[in-house]
Amino acid sequence: MISIYAPVGFPEIQPGDNLAAIILRQCQLEQSDVVVVTSKIVSKAENRIVTLDPNDDRAFEKLILSESRRILRRRGELLITETHHGFVCANAGIDRSNIEQGKAVLLPVDSDLSARKIREQIKAKTGLEIGIIISDTFGRTWRRGVVDIALGCAGIGAILDLRGTTDNFGNILRATEIALADEIASAADLAKPKSKQTPVAIVRGIDPNYFRTSSISEEVIRPPSEDLFR
Amino acid sequence: MISIYAPVGFPEIQPGDNLAAIILRQCQLEQSDVVVVTSKIVSKAENRIVTLDPNDDRAFEKLILSESRRILRRRGELLITETHHGFVCANAGIDRSNIEQGKAVLLPVDSDLSARKIREQIKAKTGLEIGIIISDTFGRTWRRGVVDIALGCAGIGAILDLRGTTDNFGNILRATEIALADEIASAADLAKPKSKQTPVAIVRGIDPNYFRTSSISEEVIRPPSEDLFR
Repeated sequence: MISIYAPVGFPEIQPGDNLAAIILRQCQLEQSDVVVVTSKIVSKAENRIVTLDPNDDRAFEKLILSESRRILRRRGELLITETHHGFVCANAGIDRSNIEQGKAVLLPVDSDLSARKIREQIKAKTGLEIGIIISDTFGRTWRRGVVDIALGCAGIGAILDLRGTTDNFGNILRATEIALADEIASAADLAKPKSKQTPVAIVRGIDPNYFRTSSISEEVIRPPSEDLFR
Repeated sequence: MISIYAPVGFPEIQPGDNLAAIILRQCQLEQSDVVVVTSKIVSKAENRIVTLDPNDDRAFEKLILSESRRILRRRGELLITETHHGFVCANAGIDRSNIEQGKAVLLPVDSDLSARKIREQIKAKTGLEIGIIISDTFGRTWRRGVVDIALGCAGIGAILDLRGTTDNFGNILRATEIALADEIASAADLAKPKSKQTPVAIVRGIDPNYFRTSSISEEVIRPPSEDLFR
């Protein structure tokens, strides 16, 4: 049984805020919980906020380019780029929503590191071994609509590796590397009422065997050399 | 609060089996549950099983081509194709696991229709208004690992449309069309113990406002004219 809960009443996060302390104040955590934190509040706490030059019509586009190492596609105002982290997404993941008008929020510099820091602080304060996922909302190449995915993780496996496992018929399984952290991020989004400020969700009931040292950067980001569409 | 539960002890599904009846026997359903059914058992019940010619080394490849309307990429044994339904996935979604050796299971012909039939039968027998999602496991273009997605749905919105909604700062939201059915399919996968036969999961707690007539085919499959990578 998995349960997912998104506490309401989170304060608006400011640069310099200690997210671990705020999460502990707002949530009743248990051992082996996975805490899914939307990247927006991580970026705000880390002051990844930029004021757009109101006199430059191309200010947003320039910002996207400065956060990208490659442009994959462009259609009108939409840019699909590869960020310096290696994420392929719209507008380098830069968001002008949930921030004052005229400003934009960049992705965290290193979401795996941000996750690790939150995890270590929560462990130091409570002794709990939990997983942390930093989530964001990405589109998909072949499907309409967006889903929440994991930008960074700590303490929970990004990939569940079933290679070599056989099914009841003795066949080697086809789908063997499950993007566990991405599935958890998507699941967490289901618990967030869309009208309320709910930047954090707690996913409880994940198999304790899936908790380990991990990172999205090393396990999930597909290098261009490996993929078929870049 | 969302809860997800995958009942164990499902029988091996045979061609002609009535999935609605089997689901009702195995699960305690409630109003507004979403029942996520892996496409594998839908295909089996609908007899989408093919015996591969053991004397033809190219039998599997030929089968993939016959289920596809376009080949997008090929690398070694891996083919990325667009199926006749419009799904872009590896090997046209054809699977040789969880079936006797020498056989392959094709995707359902029309997963939205399969979902609708199961939903209508459950409603007729119980009076319950539930959502049905037929799920499968797909890779992603830019990220390693696979996630469960929705091939078909009935009674639950495939897309949650928040266009025009504003945030606390008065900005129009960026991520406005949420692939709800895909997020539910991914969430359902978290509840399935990997070692046991659990082809169905119940997702409880989805906002009753999200239940409506819908289909993956009309709302989620992105036509080639709309996408940037085909």
